[in-house]
Amino acid sequence: MKRVAVIGAGQTSYGLFPERTLKELFAEAAVDAYASVDKGFDAGRIDEAFIGTIGTGGSQLGNLAPLMAEAAGMIGVPAVHVENACASSGFAFRQAVLAVASGRARIAVAGGIEKMSDLPRERNRLWLGISGDVEWERLAGTNFPGIYAMMARRHMHEHGTRKADITEVAVKNRAHAVNNPKAQFRSALEREKALNAPNLAAPFNVSDACGITDGASMAIVCDADMASEFTDQPVAVLGLGAATDYVAIHDRPSVTALKAAREAARQAYDMAQIGPQDIDLAEVHDCFTIGEILAYADLGFCEPKDAGRMVADGVTRLGGRKPVNVSGGLIGKGHPIGATGTGQIYELFNQLRGAAKLPDRQVENARFGLAHNVGGSGGAVAVHILGAPQ
Amino acid sequence: MKRVAVIGAGQTSYGLFPERTLKELFAEAAVDAYASVDKGFDAGRIDEAFIGTIGTGGSQLGNLAPLMAEAAGMIGVPAVHVENACASSGFAFRQAVLAVASGRARIAVAGGIEKMSDLPRERNRLWLGISGDVEWERLAGTNFPGIYAMMARRHMHEHGTRKADITEVAVKNRAHAVNNPKAQFRSALEREKALNAPNLAAPFNVSDACGITDGASMAIVCDADMASEFTDQPVAVLGLGAATDYVAIHDRPSVTALKAAREAARQAYDMAQIGPQDIDLAEVHDCFTIGEILAYADLGFCEPKDAGRMVADGVTRLGGRKPVNVSGGLIGKGHPIGATGTGQIYELFNQLRGAAKLPDRQVENARFGLAHNVGGSGGAVAVHILGAPQ
Repeated sequence: MKRVAVIGAGQTSYGLFPERTLKELFAEAAVDAYASVDKGFDAGRIDEAFIGTIGTGGSQLGNLAPLMAEAAGMIGVPAVHVENACASSGFAFRQAVLAVASGRARIAVAGGIEKMSDLPRERNRLWLGISGDVEWERLAGTNFPGIYAMMARRHMHEHGTRKADITEVAVKNRAHAVNNPKAQFRSALEREKALNAPNLAAPFNVSDACGITDGASMAIVCDADMASEFTDQPVAVLGLGAATDYVAIHDRPSVTALKAAREAARQAYDMAQIGPQDIDLAEVHDCFTIGEILAYADLGFCEPKDAGRMVADGVTRLGGRKPVNVSGGLIGKGHPIGATGTGQIYELFNQLRGAAKLPDRQVENARFGLAHNVGGSGGAVAVHILGAPQ
Repeated sequence: MKRVAVIGAGQTSYGLFPERTLKELFAEAAVDAYASVDKGFDAGRIDEAFIGTIGTGGSQLGNLAPLMAEAAGMIGVPAVHVENACASSGFAFRQAVLAVASGRARIAVAGGIEKMSDLPRERNRLWLGISGDVEWERLAGTNFPGIYAMMARRHMHEHGTRKADITEVAVKNRAHAVNNPKAQFRSALEREKALNAPNLAAPFNVSDACGITDGASMAIVCDADMASEFTDQPVAVLGLGAATDYVAIHDRPSVTALKAAREAARQAYDMAQIGPQDIDLAEVHDCFTIGEILAYADLGFCEPKDAGRMVADGVTRLGGRKPVNVSGGLIGKGHPIGATGTGQIYELFNQLRGAAKLPDRQVENARFGLAHNVGGSGGAVAVHILGAPQ
C-alpha cells in the first residue's frame, strides 16, 4: 500500500455550546486543521473528504457531507458522510487513508462532528440507543450504560477486577483532562467522590460514564511522498485495522473482550510491523470506564486479569510505562460522538510531533501512538497506529 | 490507479414490502449478488463493505453497517455506513472501488438499502426533506417536489423545453419498467393520462415524481487481476467521478444544470478516456422527470436546449441511439433511496455482460455504461463508467 502521512489536525474545544451551529463548529475544526499545517495549506487542494457524524436522519441536518464541506471551504470536493455509531470518524479517517492510498486522491481530509446539545436529554437517549441492536437490546429495555455494566460485572466475575480499579480509569482520565485546554471536564475527580457518586447501572455510578458533548475535529492526510511540501514533521500512518462483530452482545461468545477490537488491533500491528510493547501512548475508547479496561487487553497491553491492576498501579497514567488517554479520553476530554475518532488522531498528531506542543501532558519521545475507536458496544471498531516524524 | 472489476451484482425486487425487515431485504440482495458470481463466491472472502442508506438516526435501526454485514453473512468484515442522501450507495460503490484500488482490500462490496414503508407518509416527507438545506429550504417551506419544480420551470423558460417533453421521461421510463421483473411500477403510463394527472407542484403533476419504495442492492468488486478466478465476464470500472455543490439551490449560479454532476462526469470521462458519444447506455437519476432532462446535458449527451427534444424524439428509448434508464429508472423501477446507486450498477452489470441476460430490454452490444446518482437536489453526485467484458 502507498505510504500515507498526516500533515495537519484540528479540533474545537469540547463542551456544551447550544448557541453554536453545526456549520460553525465544523468550520472551526477545519480552520484549526488548515492552520496546523506548518508550511501553509489551501483547502482548494483537498481531493476528497470524509465526515463522521451520527446526528442526522430525523434529528438535525441531513445530507451533511456537502453542507459541512461547504462550511469548511471545500467547495465542490467529493465528500462522504460516514456513520458508524461512536466510531464514525475513526472509519472516516480510514476512508481518507484508503482514498490517498488508492492514488485517486493526493490529499484527503477526515473530520467528525456532533452537536448533542441540540437535543433534549430524552431524545439523546433514544438517539444513542439505536446504535445498539434496536430489535434485541433497545426494545428489550437495555441501553448503553446497562450493556457496558454487564460487561463490567462479568469482568469482575471472570478476572477478579475490582470496582475501584474500574473507577480509577475515570479518576486518571479526569486528572489528565485538567491539563488539556480543549477538554470538557477540566476539574479533577476525587477518588472517594468517584466511588460514592450516585448510582447509574450497577456496578457503574455516574463517574463511570462520559457526558453529553458538542465538538468537531479534523485530520488532513496526503501521499507521504508529497508531505515535505507541507511540513518537515509529517506523522506516518503505519497501521490500519477495522472489523465488525455481532451488534447484540448476547450473540457474542464473550462479553469481556471486544472481538472486533482484537481483530482490528491485530491488523494494525501486522501492517505496522510492531507489537503492543512498542506503543508509547494510546487514545482509547472509554465511553464507560470498563471500555478502557477492555481495551488494555484487546490491544495486547496485558492479559485481561491484569487490566484492573494496570490502571490501579498507575502504569497508564501520564508518566507511567504505557500512558493511555493523556488527552483526558472520552470521560475527561469529552465524547462528541462523531468527532471522537479524528479527535483521537488530533491528540496523537500533536503528541508524536513532540517539541512541547502539549506542555502539560507531553509524552516524551513517543515514537508510536495508537487510536482505538469503538462503535456501539463493539459492533464496529477502527484502530490506527501512527508514527513520529523521522 | 489499480484496475478494479465488478464480478457480481444483486438486487431485490423494488416495491412496498411492509412485512419484510431491513435485514431480510439486505440479505436477499446479498445472496442474489453472491449467486451472480459465475464461478461461485464465498462471503468469507470479502475484505471490506460499504453500505448506503439514509434510514437511520431516529427512524429505524442505527449502527447499520455491522447489522447489515451480519445479515449478509459478512461476519467480522470492516463495514462502513455511507449516507449521502439519494446518492448514498453511489458513493458506497466509489468507496468500495477505492478500497480495492488502495491495495488494502482485494474484494469489496457496496450495497444499499431503504425501507421507506416503515414510516408513515408524513414522516417520510420530513425525513426526505432533511436531505435539502434544512435551514434555508425546508424551514422556509420548500420541499423536493418544489425545488425540482423550480428547476423545471426555469428550464422551460431558458431553453424552451415543453412540459410535454418533461413528462415524456415518465412515459418512457414506465414503458421500460414493464419489461423489468424487479421494477415497482410495471404498468405503462399513457401519455394523455400522464399529462392530465393531479397537480403536484407546478409544472409537475404526480406523474413527474418517483414513488415510495423498499428495496436493496449490492455490487461486488475486486482487483481486476484476480477477476478471472470468479468469472470470465468481469465488468471493468473505467471511470470514477464525484463532486459536491452548494446544497441550497439559491446559492448556485444556475438551476438548469447540476454543477456537481458536470464535474463528476468530467472526472469519469477523463479517467475512462472516453467521451459522452461513447456511452451506449446510461442509468440516470430521474427522481423527478426534470432530473433526467438535466442529466442529458450534464452528462454531455446534448446541449440543454436540445434535452427536451431528445426524449420526445425517442433518442433515449430502448432501441434509440442513446438509451437511458432501460431499467425503468427511479420513476419506473423505483427509488429505494439508499439502494438506488448500487441498483444502477446492477443494471449496467447485466446489460454489459449481454448474452440476453435481460431478454426484454437488452441494449445490444453495449460497450460502455454510465451510472449517475444524485444526492439531494445536486448537493452530492457520483458518476461511474463501466466497460463490457473484453
